Amino acid sequence: MSFITMKPGTLLSPVPAVLIGSGAEGESGPVRNLMTAAWAGTVCSDPPTVSVSVRPSRYTYELIEKSGEFTVILPDTAMLRGTDYCGVRSGREEDKFSRCGFTPVPADGLKYAPAVAEAPLYLSCLVRQRLPLGSHVMYLGEIVRMGIREDLMDKNGSIDLQKAGLFAYSHGVYNALGEALGFFGCSVAAPDVLERRMSGLRSGK
Amino acid sequence: MSFITMKPGTLLSPVPAVLIGSGAEGESGPVRNLMTAAWAGTVCSDPPTVSVSVRPSRYTYELIEKSGEFTVILPDTAMLRGTDYCGVRSGREEDKFSRCGFTPVPADGLKYAPAVAEAPLYLSCLVRQRLPLGSHVMYLGEIVRMGIREDLMDKNGSIDLQKAGLFAYSHGVYNALGEALGFFGCSVAAPDVLERRMSGLRSGK
Repeated sequence: MSFITMKPGTLLSPVPAVLIGSGAEGESGPVRNLMTAAWAGTVCSDPPTVSVSVRPSRYTYELIEKSGEFTVILPDTAMLRGTDYCGVRSGREEDKFSRCGFTPVPADGLKYAPAVAEAPLYLSCLVRQRLPLGSHVMYLGEIVRMGIREDLMDKNGSIDLQKAGLFAYSHGVYNALGEALGFFGCSVAAPDVLERRMSGLRSGK
Repeated sequence: MSFITMKPGTLLSPVPAVLIGSGAEGESGPVRNLMTAAWAGTVCSDPPTVSVSVRPSRYTYELIEKSGEFTVILPDTAMLRGTDYCGVRSGREEDKFSRCGFTPVPADGLKYAPAVAEAPLYLSCLVRQRLPLGSHVMYLGEIVRMGIREDLMDKNGSIDLQKAGLFAYSHGVYNALGEALGFFGCSVAAPDVLERRMSGLRSGK
């Protein structure tokens, strides 16, 4: 099979589809918003840092510029419709929380940017750098705290994200996360370790 | 359900698990390498730009520093074992291409960094910025060309990534991309559009 070569596009895939929570002091009290971002990624392990890219026309851009903080909220499949909605409508015109049935709750370690009660997990981020790149401004956010829904902690105190019902975004389509095919290091694992861990993944343990 | 809050970690999920191709002029001719990266993301639409974060101890770091270019190669599930292997072994010690059965081929628009013949898609990237962030150096690569396996082009000249058999990485586990749950804009689509597009996604058209 051969490659067709063509002009560039943003085809890295799959990418996350996450909700970005933002907030700031408004003219008559605190305001807040949710925006969907697929242009998001982990960029450093230590300090743990994520990147989120936002168009300057967005309300979320205005709020992050004011407060210097944001949340990265991982939605599950039950939140898919609302997550899509938060990517196509503006928080300047309506309250997307109530429209989507998403309950804003305080995010640990932040002053303004909210978490969402219905989501499996959120990351509280403080902006460390901002880089204008063209259509988008990229924010590098250090993860200062995080919140995990208690049912996702297993009995050893580890986080089991396989139970979270997350989904991915692939060139315009939202896909459920399917079968667990392997784990980091599976290609060099001893046969008994491979057997035990794959069996655990298949049975959801 | 309530949140357990804890110290930060790199829990953004799912993220891509991609192969980074690199190359440079060595002491006795051109050299090249493959490395797996989950710390990768799209960061700008125009110009189309990706970020890839690499530890300075990596051979790939040395090659990108020399040549200023890299490829982002999207593997499919048939490449999973090799993709894992390229994340745990060093190209300083062995040729990961032959070890994994990955055939290096020239990447359109680049001089040294290779694509992989077996992969569904690759992005040719030129380094525009490098940012040392701590454990990792983040490279911002402008996508200058891309190559798509010809069977992924549909009859209208569009790219159908749903056929590519991609997988995602979620907190240490590789997951197949599962059921198509929706498309960008599905929450505000007219009923007939929603019906038609979801039916197309389900039947793989």
